[in-house]
Amino acid sequence: MVAALLLTGLSGWSLGASAQPDPLPSWNDGKSKQAIVDFVAKVTREGGPDFVKPAERIATFDNDGTLWAEQPVYFQVQFAFDEVKRLAVQNPDWKTKEPFRSVLARDLKGLAASGEKGLLQIMAATHTGMTTDQFAAAVANWLASARHPSKQRRYDEMVYQPQLELLAYLRTNGFKTFIVSGGGVEFMRVFAEKAYGIPPEQVIGSTGVVKFRIGGDGRPELFKDSKVEFVDDGPGKPVGINRFIGRRPILAFGNSDGDLQMLQYTAAGSGARLALIVHHTDAEREWAYDRTSKIGKLDKALDEAKAKGWTVVDMKTDWKTVFPASK
Amino acid sequence: MVAALLLTGLSGWSLGASAQPDPLPSWNDGKSKQAIVDFVAKVTREGGPDFVKPAERIATFDNDGTLWAEQPVYFQVQFAFDEVKRLAVQNPDWKTKEPFRSVLARDLKGLAASGEKGLLQIMAATHTGMTTDQFAAAVANWLASARHPSKQRRYDEMVYQPQLELLAYLRTNGFKTFIVSGGGVEFMRVFAEKAYGIPPEQVIGSTGVVKFRIGGDGRPELFKDSKVEFVDDGPGKPVGINRFIGRRPILAFGNSDGDLQMLQYTAAGSGARLALIVHHTDAEREWAYDRTSKIGKLDKALDEAKAKGWTVVDMKTDWKTVFPASK
Repeated sequence: MVAALLLTGLSGWSLGASAQPDPLPSWNDGKSKQAIVDFVAKVTREGGPDFVKPAERIATFDNDGTLWAEQPVYFQVQFAFDEVKRLAVQNPDWKTKEPFRSVLARDLKGLAASGEKGLLQIMAATHTGMTTDQFAAAVANWLASARHPSKQRRYDEMVYQPQLELLAYLRTNGFKTFIVSGGGVEFMRVFAEKAYGIPPEQVIGSTGVVKFRIGGDGRPELFKDSKVEFVDDGPGKPVGINRFIGRRPILAFGNSDGDLQMLQYTAAGSGARLALIVHHTDAEREWAYDRTSKIGKLDKALDEAKAKGWTVVDMKTDWKTVFPASK
Repeated sequence: MVAALLLTGLSGWSLGASAQPDPLPSWNDGKSKQAIVDFVAKVTREGGPDFVKPAERIATFDNDGTLWAEQPVYFQVQFAFDEVKRLAVQNPDWKTKEPFRSVLARDLKGLAASGEKGLLQIMAATHTGMTTDQFAAAVANWLASARHPSKQRRYDEMVYQPQLELLAYLRTNGFKTFIVSGGGVEFMRVFAEKAYGIPPEQVIGSTGVVKFRIGGDGRPELFKDSKVEFVDDGPGKPVGINRFIGRRPILAFGNSDGDLQMLQYTAAGSGARLALIVHHTDAEREWAYDRTSKIGKLDKALDEAKAKGWTVVDMKTDWKTVFPASK
């Protein structure tokens, strides 16, 4: 008790003597940063009208285009293409068999002709028919060696510095931060903890069927089947949030129409809510795209954001830095 | 810094002056308690050969028969029967329509004759066709008013005091505690946080299909559909653990053959592991049942526990108290 009293007294004195450092140094001062800081102050002010208990401070973030980049193709798709090349050695028939032939020959037209069916075949060949441990190892190996074609960085360094600061700031303020992404959950979990400080159990994504079986060595293992089980995109996002978290978020951050229902669901809860959208407006430091983009199309959600007063973060003006310093 | 030093000094002094209280007072001294205490000491000893980082200290608990009682029928089934009675007012045809007629007439033979199909109809009628919020409210109302037929307690007071202590002890030692149950996730989440200190996002269970829609009032809502989506039992348990947690537990606790694969999967990981089973041996304070019971059958898992040296907790001799003092 004496110790606690001493500590309280001295901490108070020491806090008063120095200013708090800015927790969001990569965010320029402006409406977006202010909206975030005001919201966090409001929900954490004990006794205030908008106070939210720490256990209910749930924040959900889309991944592709919100926490890391997604151009020129979703990074998980790039992983699948690279895996086709790596696995071609064991699959000599791929040289003449579509859609694999097109990937190996870098034939974009041929790949486009194989359509969604072709892409699903590529995903199945590179993401299933192996144990969960084997798949995680393949992703880790790829992350360690692959580089982004134009930025020449490791893919797990294509994360947004301002968002890393925001995640840390929210956690410091008692929030539990989750990823809610259309990407594959087994793919994201390999890097989410190191890249974002988000542990596997707080990563929600699309899933394939996984089966429990006793392996050849007599040890239990989990085998990734080729059947898609759940697509965590669009209306699937609030469904995924309900299934995995069981609580409505008070803050949600997305960047495309695939995040619209998550933002609607979050904003519709009672009490203080914050819905945010990254608007990709920075052709120089990153990419500029929205209503007509094939990747990360932002059209309906941009209209609804304006109509409902959601916070639209303008990458070009709101972010001082985009990517962290390369390691 | 000065404050921190003062605190360290004084805390050390004050800890040295008094003995640590027993964190598991409702556990009798014996092999089971010792196995738990030894395991926790081992995995938390920094620099020791069995040290596990806090982020990887995942503990999973079955619910029915492991954290709370399950006799004479699973409590969720009792909820469904009670809901049939409550909802009969709005469904006058149920008086003559099976399986509802049997529930309303307390006709156990008639109910048994309707079989699994009948039970699924009862579950669908009481668990689906409503929003997730409406269902949660129905469960909360039932818990507040219903009493166990023989013990005359609220159902959420039919929890095991030794397990409440174990959950708290694990959390104090940096573990993250999860429920992994065949029960419905939307049912358990209503009471798990208050009863066990386990938040909704750490409750894994069976799920039905849920759909996102914009309700009549223009607000987004989640609607519970009648289709079963995932049965978190038997081989489904390691699958559910992988899907929701994405890490293999280092400790798992069950009580029936439905927990066998979760225990196998947990025990098969590398490093220190603890697999535990509650053996219901106490006909006086609780119930005594195992190999031939319809509810919570414990047969194969009991054999495997003996063969593999898992910890079998004997309720009669290992637990000083079974239920907490009634509130």
